[in-house]
Formats: sequence, C-alpha cells, structure tokens
Amino acid sequence: MSENNIPYKTYLNENEIPKAWYNLRADMKTKPAPLLNPGTGKPLTAEELTPIFCEELVRQELDNDTAYFPIPQDIVDFYKMYRPSPLVRAYCLEKVLDTPAKIYYKFEGNNTSGSHKLNSAIAQAYYAKQQGLKGVTTETGAGQWGTALSMACAYLGLDCKVFMVKVSYEQKPFRREVMRTYGASVTPSPSAETAVGRKILAEHPGTTGSLGCAISEAVEVATQTPGYRYVLGSVLNQVLLHQSIIGLEAKAAFDKIGVKPDIIIGCAGGGSNLGGLISPFMGEKLRGEADYRIIAVEPASCPSFTRGRFAYDFCDTGMICPLAKMYTLGSGFIPSPNHAGGLRFHGMSTILSQLYHDGLMEARAVEQTSVFEAAELFARSEGILPAPESSHAIRAAIDEAMRCKETGEEKNILFGLTGTGYFDLTAYQKYNDGEMSDYIPTDADLERGFAGLPKVEG
Amino acid sequence: MSENNIPYKTYLNENEIPKAWYNLRADMKTKPAPLLNPGTGKPLTAEELTPIFCEELVRQELDNDTAYFPIPQDIVDFYKMYRPSPLVRAYCLEKVLDTPAKIYYKFEGNNTSGSHKLNSAIAQAYYAKQQGLKGVTTETGAGQWGTALSMACAYLGLDCKVFMVKVSYEQKPFRREVMRTYGASVTPSPSAETAVGRKILAEHPGTTGSLGCAISEAVEVATQTPGYRYVLGSVLNQVLLHQSIIGLEAKAAFDKIGVKPDIIIGCAGGGSNLGGLISPFMGEKLRGEADYRIIAVEPASCPSFTRGRFAYDFCDTGMICPLAKMYTLGSGFIPSPNHAGGLRFHGMSTILSQLYHDGLMEARAVEQTSVFEAAELFARSEGILPAPESSHAIRAAIDEAMRCKETGEEKNILFGLTGTGYFDLTAYQKYNDGEMSDYIPTDADLERGFAGLPKVEG
Repeated sequence: MSENNIPYKTYLNENEIPKAWYNLRADMKTKPAPLLNPGTGKPLTAEELTPIFCEELVRQELDNDTAYFPIPQDIVDFYKMYRPSPLVRAYCLEKVLDTPAKIYYKFEGNNTSGSHKLNSAIAQAYYAKQQGLKGVTTETGAGQWGTALSMACAYLGLDCKVFMVKVSYEQKPFRREVMRTYGASVTPSPSAETAVGRKILAEHPGTTGSLGCAISEAVEVATQTPGYRYVLGSVLNQVLLHQSIIGLEAKAAFDKIGVKPDIIIGCAGGGSNLGGLISPFMGEKLRGEADYRIIAVEPASCPSFTRGRFAYDFCDTGMICPLAKMYTLGSGFIPSPNHAGGLRFHGMSTILSQLYHDGLMEARAVEQTSVFEAAELFARSEGILPAPESSHAIRAAIDEAMRCKETGEEKNILFGLTGTGYFDLTAYQKYNDGEMSDYIPTDADLERGFAGLPKVEG
Repeated sequence: MSENNIPYKTYLNENEIPKAWYNLRADMKTKPAPLLNPGTGKPLTAEELTPIFCEELVRQELDNDTAYFPIPQDIVDFYKMYRPSPLVRAYCLEKVLDTPAKIYYKFEGNNTSGSHKLNSAIAQAYYAKQQGLKGVTTETGAGQWGTALSMACAYLGLDCKVFMVKVSYEQKPFRREVMRTYGASVTPSPSAETAVGRKILAEHPGTTGSLGCAISEAVEVATQTPGYRYVLGSVLNQVLLHQSIIGLEAKAAFDKIGVKPDIIIGCAGGGSNLGGLISPFMGEKLRGEADYRIIAVEPASCPSFTRGRFAYDFCDTGMICPLAKMYTLGSGFIPSPNHAGGLRFHGMSTILSQLYHDGLMEARAVEQTSVFEAAELFARSEGILPAPESSHAIRAAIDEAMRCKETGEEKNILFGLTGTGYFDLTAYQKYNDGEMSDYIPTDADLERGFAGLPKVEG
C-alpha cells in the first residue's frame, strides 16, 4: 500500500527532537499588537506582567525578535516520554475517499492528556519550578489543558489548581478524575471561591460557564496567593512558541521522507495547535522561501476568525486580564452549550490574528454535525477516535481531498490531529443517537458580544 | 538521563514488524491438553470446531507443531497503523523508586482500543472476511476486546455483535459508545436475546454478569445465525499465537539496544497478553538457549493460577463451549463486582496453564488497593495512566525493582503495559475518594466454584 516507500508513521529519533523552539514573531513584518494595560491603555511592561506570569515566561511573551529559544534539557527529557510524535500518512483514509491527494497528519494524542497541550504545560510548569514557586493556577475547558498541566505538575512536584468550565465539569467527570489522579484540585467555574466568580454567579445564576470566566477566576487566585502564578494553555505568544515543537518535528519528518506539504490545516480555538503546527512553514512563507496554503478551521458556533472583529479585547469574561488585539466575538460571548468539546474561546492568538489580517492564511467555519461525520469516517478508516476539536481539521482535510478528486490534483495535505476523543464520548453518544444539533449564532447574538468590546485605540 | 544511550522509547521500523507469528506450542515438550467435546469427552476435531470458529482459525487453534505462521500482508498493513509499539525504558519510574534495576515496558495502549487486544482482533476479523462471512459475535468484559473487534470489523466492513458483561456495560457507558461509533451492536449480558441468557437471568435475576456467561450468549448467536462465527479475545491458542507479535517485537527491540531482560512480568486474566509477551523468551527457555524469570500476576479476587485447580473445565458459564484443561476456579465462579477492570475470567490459557504446571513460570496474586497505588505512582512518574489490568504487572515490577534496591542488583525488568485506563475512571474515582476495597474469595467461595467442575479424565 505504501508507494514510494513512505511509511505509515514517520518518527524522528529522540536525538532529533528540536533543541530550540521557533518564535514566529521574529519573522513577521507586522508584529502582533502588544498587550495593553486595561487601566492605562498603555502597552504592558514586564514588571506589570510578573505578578501574573513566571519571569521567564514574561520574557518569552514579550520578545518579538529572538527567533529561537533553546529548550531546557529537563523539558527535552520530559518530551522524550511521549515525543517525537508521529507524522502519519493516512493511507487508509485516502483509500476510502478514493482521492489522488496524499493526506498526512501530525498526531499529538499519544499521551494521557490526550492532546498537544502537554508541550506547553511542561514548559510553563518547569519555569514555575525554576522560579521557586509553590504552584500554578489555570482554567480548562474541554479538559485537555488541565490534564496536561496536572501531569506536568505531578512530574515536577508542583501544586496545581484548575478551574474547569462548569459545562465540561459536568459532562466530563472522568476528565476531572484524571486530573485528581495526578494530584490536581479541580473546581467548577464559575465558583464561589473567587470575587469574580461570585459576581458572575450573581448576574447569571444558570450559566454553564466559559473559558473567559474560568480564566478570570484562575488569575484572581494566582495573583492573590503567595508563591503562585497563572498559566494559560492557549492564545498567548509563549504558548505558540512552545507549540512550535509540533511544526518543527513535522517539518523535519517531511524533510526525512522528501515531501513538501501544499496545504496545512489546523483547528483553531485560541490558536495553540494551529500556531505551533504552522510556525516553521509560515516562517518560510514570511521569508519568501516557500509557499503554503494555510487553513484555520473553527466551529460555526464560535466563529472568531470568520465572523469576529479584529479589535482590542479582554481575554477573560471578568475583564481583569490584559487587553489583546485579536479576532474576537467579545469577552461576553458564551458559545451555545450544545457545542461539544473545546474551541469555545471568544478570541484568538494575537499572532494568528495578525497573520490572518495580513492575508497570510485562510479561515473557514464548519458545523458540528459535519464535523462528527468526518470524525466517524476517520475513526473507522484510520483507527484513531479523534477529539471533536481535531475533527474540525479532519473535516477540512477531507473536503480538500475531495476537491483534489474532482480536479485530479495530487496535493499533499497536512493536518493537525491534536488529540483523541476518549473523554468526549458524551458528544459521540449524541451523534450516534442522532441527537446532535448545529448551532450558528445570529448576527444579533454577535452584536451583543461586540457591544462589550472596550474602547481602545490600536 | 539515558545512560548507555538507550533511548526512552525504542521503536522498530515498520519493515521490521515480524512477518510471522510464533507458535510457542511447537517448542513445548508437554503440549497443552486438547480441547474436549463435552458430550463425548473426546478431543475435538476441526470439523466439530468449524461451526463455531473460522476455518483458518481452527487450523491455528489445533496446530501444536508449526513454529511460525506467516502474517498475511493485509494484517501487516493494519498493524502499521498502530505498530510497532514502543519498548519504553522507565527512566522516570526508576528515578522515583531510586532502584538500581532497569525497568522496561512494552506499551500496547497507543491505539483507540486502548490495549493489545487489537493484535488478535484484526487477525480473527481478517480470516472471517476471507471466509466470506457476514459478521462475528463476541463477548467483552472491561471492553477492550469488544472495542478492538469493532475497530477491526469497521475497517474490513464486517458486522460485529458484542455481548458486554452487564457490570461493565453499566460502569463503562463510554466503552459502549466507542463500539457504537465503530458500528458495532452492543448488548448487556446476560440478555433475553439468547436461551442461555434467559436461563441465567431466571436462575440469578440480580446477576452482574460474567465473561463466562457472555461467551455462552455470543457462541449461541454465532452458531445459530448463518454467515456468522464466534471470536474470542483471550484464552485460546490462536489468540496467544497472534499476540506473539508483542513478544517478538519486544525481543527485536531488546536485541537492537543490546539488552537481555532478566525478569518478564505480565498481568494474567485469560492469558492473551502474558502469553504473547513471553512467547519468544519462553521459546528460548524451552529450547535451553536462555533463562528468564517469568511472572504471571493476577488479581487476588480472581486467583486462577495461585488458588485454582488444574483441571478440565468449561470456558463459559452456560457450559456450551468445549472443555479446556486449565487452571480454573470453576465456570460458575463470578468474581466480586468490586473488582475493577478485566482479569475476571475464571480460567486461563491452556498453554500458560501447562507451562505453569511444568514449573516454567511463577505466579502471584495482588490486591486491588496496592494495584491502584502502583498505578498512581506510575502515572505520576511515567505520564501514562495505566489500565487497571496492566497495573497488576506494574505492581509486581515495582516490587521486583524494590527488591533490587535491597540487594543492589541491576536486573533488567520487562513488564507488559497492556493498555491505558482512560475508560476506567470510575475505578480511579473510587481510589481517589478512598472508597476502593479489596476482596479475596474465601476457601468456601472457591469450593463452590470447584464443585461445578465437570468429571473428566485428563
């Protein structure tokens, strides 16, 4: 089956794990807009950020110029437990689709957190440990990030406090138990443990929560508890930096088999996977060394890129976080609870937002039922049960492969299979029972979100 | 961390996947006792078995002499989707234990079925397809086997009907949904769909089911539905043959890094993993080429090896299956429902039973709480959340490593990490909440099971 001797799975050797993360910002002509202090409207300084984030992570967050950050050996050693991740040739999916396209996916789900989130979790936990901190706080939506952080903290002996979006906490009790097994404490958000949580509960008693709200709670606890800092699994520049390991490995694996991808596809919630996957390819594109079609895929129920505004906004619902210039639906936007899984964040990485704004990548929104159709087709042909998030990328990859079938083009399609769906069986059950529904916010829904955008020049 | 340049994970290349399964029986001086027809008490012929099993599988089941069976290319291609599986050096666990022992594990959980069961599922489904059958029936306990078979059948376009032990069906609704996603039908057992199920329900209305009972139902449906055959995920000779891929890969990987294991440890329910893992090593031992300590680890709640009888018994509760000579607790033995996960079968592979009887391997029983202690320690140090079944082997591996710490011996310990615990979070939750209990059957409990043993010369 494997023509040209391209294996099903291409693994790098452990000594080929990249030694440095790649900072895409260094090659961007238009840098992402800086974070602003919501009080002063001025760009945030390192001093203002260090009460929230670890010092080294603040340095990584603000550095738009250094192209490569060496990966500390301890992190490389941790990476060796589950990396390099395989670049997989989807021979069986190609056969089922009967397409001339060659489909590849970079599979990040072969670890207990079930996704790529572990790549940044270990980095952020490592720097917290280096700084002599006692613990970290964070939020989690679908649960992958919280699980990843729990694993990293257990490994390093750090305390870990997770605020979990209430709808996920209830739909995914097993995610909570994985985190507890790794020693983390898990609180449904909004909670009565924080001022911001109590305020949101008072205003919206029946709320199912949102990532933005959970972020507010985690930041409040981190800044008010000595020896703690806040860590975030997506959106931030530092996260995309750590996640560049995905793209760097993928590129090295492609080089090994002598293939160049034509189309690169990733799902997009806050941008951590997409930003990491595309980074070295986008770098080549920015430097004029190569060209790629790059496609962000988001849920039609939370369409930041395709229907959002490119504006300064809060990253959190409680409006205590810095302002970021990004494609956003407004920090008050809460996606319908009938949307399964992650990709529920109202905003988007500032890096990716700038790249999209500059026409360097495409974006498309897909509906939930068609996403699960793609997920089922993929599971049955390639074996792996994909995460709903990842299945957005599968949907687009299948669509592109079917387009190749029409045109006869043998394009090389790469997509990011960010994780597995083992904790998303409630959603699969709905799909299996024919009870899954699609939801697209109306223009009026979106206008309500936009009405809350802060007035900022930028 | 990796002294001697031994990587964390040793992967074979895809072209190094073994081309043939190894049949351990060929090297056994005392062959396993033959299956008997329960009606006549005579060894079963191929003709008698073909209404139950596929023809090629019957051939494999009865062949005690052929050392190697070539693996069909289609199965090798399927294997390439998730194999070769890694041989992992547990550097982080060794560090936590502060042991001079070198710990390795062969990790079979990196596929959606979550365990090694897929190795035999694809083989059995393949031969059913080759024979032109419409579908297969089976039973599943913890759910790994049913999931594996669903995946294999989805891939090949075969119908798949699974009887799932009722206690697992209720405790693991998500396992059921994975199987449904792969297109299988799943029925809780005992059910009203079969004569044997109705009989058991009438006699034991509150029963939580057992593997033996689910087997009876699956066999009944297979033998009474045209175009169907029955397949089984453990115990049988053919299953151990297919699972030899685990040991063959492990041995090839050890050869690659120039290491020879001293102690080989596997959990034992029906014997599919243990038999597969040890096969080439046991082969060397049988041929006098090398020596290894081989340890079977079973739950104290279902102690076939350590407290069972070596006798002819039914493989199923309904007593419609052939008689097998094995270590058994009696086909009427139903383990306490407080035992989590698999390893609930009352009997044991006839091959392993004979080897144990001949003093070629050891066995030990471990209690549930200590198993989950080992699981948690492993998860926090090595990252992977292990299946409860696999954690029996982890328990023994840790115990052996701690013994090395006392004696200062640098033994090489290999254990089989058969799968992941992502669908066992109900059990982990009990452990996290301090509500897990141990259960050891009394001698009187066992005598009740032995009282049901059939009277057979053998």
